[in-house]
Amino acid sequence: MEKIYTLDTTLRDGLQAQTVSFSLKDKLKIIRLLDKLGVDFIEVGNPAFGNADEEFFKCLDSIKTVNSKIVTFSPTCRVGEEAKDSVVLNSIVNTNVKYCTVFGKAWKLHVDEVLKTTEEENLRMIKDSIEYLRSKGKIVFFDGEHFFDGYKDNHDYAIEVLKTAASAGADTIVLCDTNGGSFPDDIKKAVREVSKLFGAKLGIHVHNDCDMAVANSVVAASCGCVHIQGTLNGIGERCGNANLATIIANLQLKKGFKVLPENNMERLTETSRAVAQITNLSTTSMPYISRNAFAHKAGMHVDAVMKNPVTFEHIDPSLVGNKRNFILSEISGKSALFNVVRKVVPDMERDDPKMDGLLKVLKQKEADGYHFEVAQESLELLIKRQLGLHKPFFEVEKLKLIDEQITETSANTSYVFIKVSVNGTEEIAAAESDGPLHALDQALRKALCNLYPSLQNVRMTDYKVRVLESRSSTGSKVRVLIECSDGVDVWNTVGVSVNIIEASKMALFDAIEYKLMKDTDKEPAPEE
Amino acid sequence: MEKIYTLDTTLRDGLQAQTVSFSLKDKLKIIRLLDKLGVDFIEVGNPAFGNADEEFFKCLDSIKTVNSKIVTFSPTCRVGEEAKDSVVLNSIVNTNVKYCTVFGKAWKLHVDEVLKTTEEENLRMIKDSIEYLRSKGKIVFFDGEHFFDGYKDNHDYAIEVLKTAASAGADTIVLCDTNGGSFPDDIKKAVREVSKLFGAKLGIHVHNDCDMAVANSVVAASCGCVHIQGTLNGIGERCGNANLATIIANLQLKKGFKVLPENNMERLTETSRAVAQITNLSTTSMPYISRNAFAHKAGMHVDAVMKNPVTFEHIDPSLVGNKRNFILSEISGKSALFNVVRKVVPDMERDDPKMDGLLKVLKQKEADGYHFEVAQESLELLIKRQLGLHKPFFEVEKLKLIDEQITETSANTSYVFIKVSVNGTEEIAAAESDGPLHALDQALRKALCNLYPSLQNVRMTDYKVRVLESRSSTGSKVRVLIECSDGVDVWNTVGVSVNIIEASKMALFDAIEYKLMKDTDKEPAPEE
Repeated sequence: MEKIYTLDTTLRDGLQAQTVSFSLKDKLKIIRLLDKLGVDFIEVGNPAFGNADEEFFKCLDSIKTVNSKIVTFSPTCRVGEEAKDSVVLNSIVNTNVKYCTVFGKAWKLHVDEVLKTTEEENLRMIKDSIEYLRSKGKIVFFDGEHFFDGYKDNHDYAIEVLKTAASAGADTIVLCDTNGGSFPDDIKKAVREVSKLFGAKLGIHVHNDCDMAVANSVVAASCGCVHIQGTLNGIGERCGNANLATIIANLQLKKGFKVLPENNMERLTETSRAVAQITNLSTTSMPYISRNAFAHKAGMHVDAVMKNPVTFEHIDPSLVGNKRNFILSEISGKSALFNVVRKVVPDMERDDPKMDGLLKVLKQKEADGYHFEVAQESLELLIKRQLGLHKPFFEVEKLKLIDEQITETSANTSYVFIKVSVNGTEEIAAAESDGPLHALDQALRKALCNLYPSLQNVRMTDYKVRVLESRSSTGSKVRVLIECSDGVDVWNTVGVSVNIIEASKMALFDAIEYKLMKDTDKEPAPEE
Repeated sequence: MEKIYTLDTTLRDGLQAQTVSFSLKDKLKIIRLLDKLGVDFIEVGNPAFGNADEEFFKCLDSIKTVNSKIVTFSPTCRVGEEAKDSVVLNSIVNTNVKYCTVFGKAWKLHVDEVLKTTEEENLRMIKDSIEYLRSKGKIVFFDGEHFFDGYKDNHDYAIEVLKTAASAGADTIVLCDTNGGSFPDDIKKAVREVSKLFGAKLGIHVHNDCDMAVANSVVAASCGCVHIQGTLNGIGERCGNANLATIIANLQLKKGFKVLPENNMERLTETSRAVAQITNLSTTSMPYISRNAFAHKAGMHVDAVMKNPVTFEHIDPSLVGNKRNFILSEISGKSALFNVVRKVVPDMERDDPKMDGLLKVLKQKEADGYHFEVAQESLELLIKRQLGLHKPFFEVEKLKLIDEQITETSANTSYVFIKVSVNGTEEIAAAESDGPLHALDQALRKALCNLYPSLQNVRMTDYKVRVLESRSSTGSKVRVLIECSDGVDVWNTVGVSVNIIEASKMALFDAIEYKLMKDTDKEPAPEE
């Protein structure tokens, strides 16, 4: 099996995404997660960049990794500048990091219109930069920026750029589709030609502007690229970078390449979800690793999967550490419900008379607007409660929310007062925030945190509101869906009410209750 | 240019997505949008299905479309059943819809293990079903379910299934990758073989479980498929169906096919976003149509794009009706704004210095999450306010909402106290309701109804809440969209805030303000 090397650039190119910023702690956590999964290289940027995180680069030396190598990143020296005088190059020379990526222009248009210099000078900058880094003992990956556009537009020059980098001693020549406009046939043609030209390893770095990033990466691997750059959940500027999680699974499980260390593939789901949590990205229907990836809703599908999972699953979900998920809906009915009940009450029999009662309650709830298909943990709680098997971890005795605009121009402020009882002990807490849900969440946590310190790890990762139809829109029911994570598991809860505050409360309280139930059911694990 | 036919299945396969359900109004709106864009076929399901929407199928005949044909959907008759006795087939026969899709098993494994019948009986079911529909004057698309898995697993039988459907008179034979596990090379090989076998048109229907759905659809078109099925934003079961918006743009703008009617490509962005709004789906970084698709954040990129947009844009965003978006920078959008300004201030000149100020405010509002495309009346109010041309009909001096759960088991109740001033006269009113928005609406009307009796005729006809992205989900911004009607006009307003109460308040107050402005601007009309 041929080995494919992966480079994750979440901490460099991923940072270009509109909504992303990472704290130092976030960055270190992402590195630990990627290393544990077994990504080969982790690109971290350049300490001289304007937006660089000084603290982070200071502690690079102290990061111990098992599987991954850290990689710094720099443009070449500038027009008319010698490499040894380049601030950005020296800033990576001065780290103890052995690997670095250097990018240079491979599209003549950019040389003409952006750099505004000659073809020769651009080649000189690339050669000089790589040779300088090599002379300092670095191993260099050369990113040929806009290579595929250059290849189409001015074929010979694009090739000359790569040749220059290879002969200057780059370890890997990375072909970049920086604008994301290329298609698999473009990639195939170019990679096949380039792979015959020189000895350096070939890599690929593509963006997703035509929804081709994963397909382009896979086709590049099949044509001889052994190094693939992307971000674990496809985060990145515009439409994102290539999604490395999907690429890893595709290449190793479908195309026979060796990508991750032995037995690590089943870490893919938990790693992707943990990184998504840090980036506050929803993985809703992402291939392989999302909750929906192996979810079955249509009655016929559920029926067939129960006969033989291969009928509607392209892989066994456990291969990537994911789980099959039968979604309950009017379409699938009793068998699907039974599957969920068995998770909660393993010895329940299909013809137990309690099943009919449960089904009736469930139908009523669905008619009321509940949507348990996407809130399975609320369903599990409902089943336990209905069967009298659930002892609540807390009860809310009183709750008061005040939302106030006190002058003509001031913004609203929310205050929440909450009184909970836990095993007979009462706790009162209050919180203030700029929004009601946040105030509610804060107040509840305050009331419970002494008794249940594990709640500190819980973060709400998604919050959805849907207004259900009714005769009068202001009096409409609303359905609130919440997704929470503690970095290990992800769970979804639901609340429905004509009152949006109440619906949010129901979903939030179920989410907290589920976390406490989950932790109790598990063997207590040592805190991280 | 070769024509590619598109079939949107949002209302059929899209409904299999975990989080989706549509009201009758939603469905009709989606059909109008798809028709206006120029999708060729719109698949709507089967009136006999358990989850079917009776009202919707009742009004199918009254739907007038310009570009699109409606298509019903059915499985074949069952094992041992004659087509003429099939409930599902007859339910589509009994509609006046001329086009229908029938799906049958093209993978022997499904015949053996799911249908539990013989190869011959499966072929009989397909033949009989198609012939029956043809005899009733229908034009039939045959979806060969699991064709690509069948082709790999049991090549000859998969081909025989297609041949049977073609010789029974199917107009188009659609090759399905139902489990989404296929790659472009699989698609290419199979489509090339099949395209030589018979005269029927070929189609493709793929799912996105390996993130290959768009690539697979594009490669299928290049190998001879002339009919492509998908959903406009890729919504669908598990990882979704192929994203038709991306496919349409890829094929027409990049691959030289003719897909949409002349000049309709620039409707792509608005249509995709409008459908996404109905499905409550975020288009955050979707290719071509999202706000991020042409957003430039990195300094170097912004700089290069200003020199020449081609440097970092794979297409001109206006081709699909989208806009370039410089983050933290202001440019263009001016013409679009000017159009709206002229509605409000007919004598405004394009180069009036006030236009720049307006543009700046608008950019800021959009960056804050406002979405004026679907709330034009809020934009008109904003313009008037910014230009100092709006004299408010009322001002809210104080507002207090209390939402309370007073015992362990009681439901929440909302109380609103409001103090408004109208031309120096103060009014205080209070209202109580089971939900905050209703209480707010009631209190405001109470405060204003003596002065503005026409408000009695205003009804809120739609209310939508969308949680916007942000670092922490409980602290996320929400966008509230409100639609109101007085029986004559319909208008839409928007509010954005981290506080859902405040966002609702903003949208509601704009809606009331707009009604008052509208009535004043018009010749006073007799009361209804």
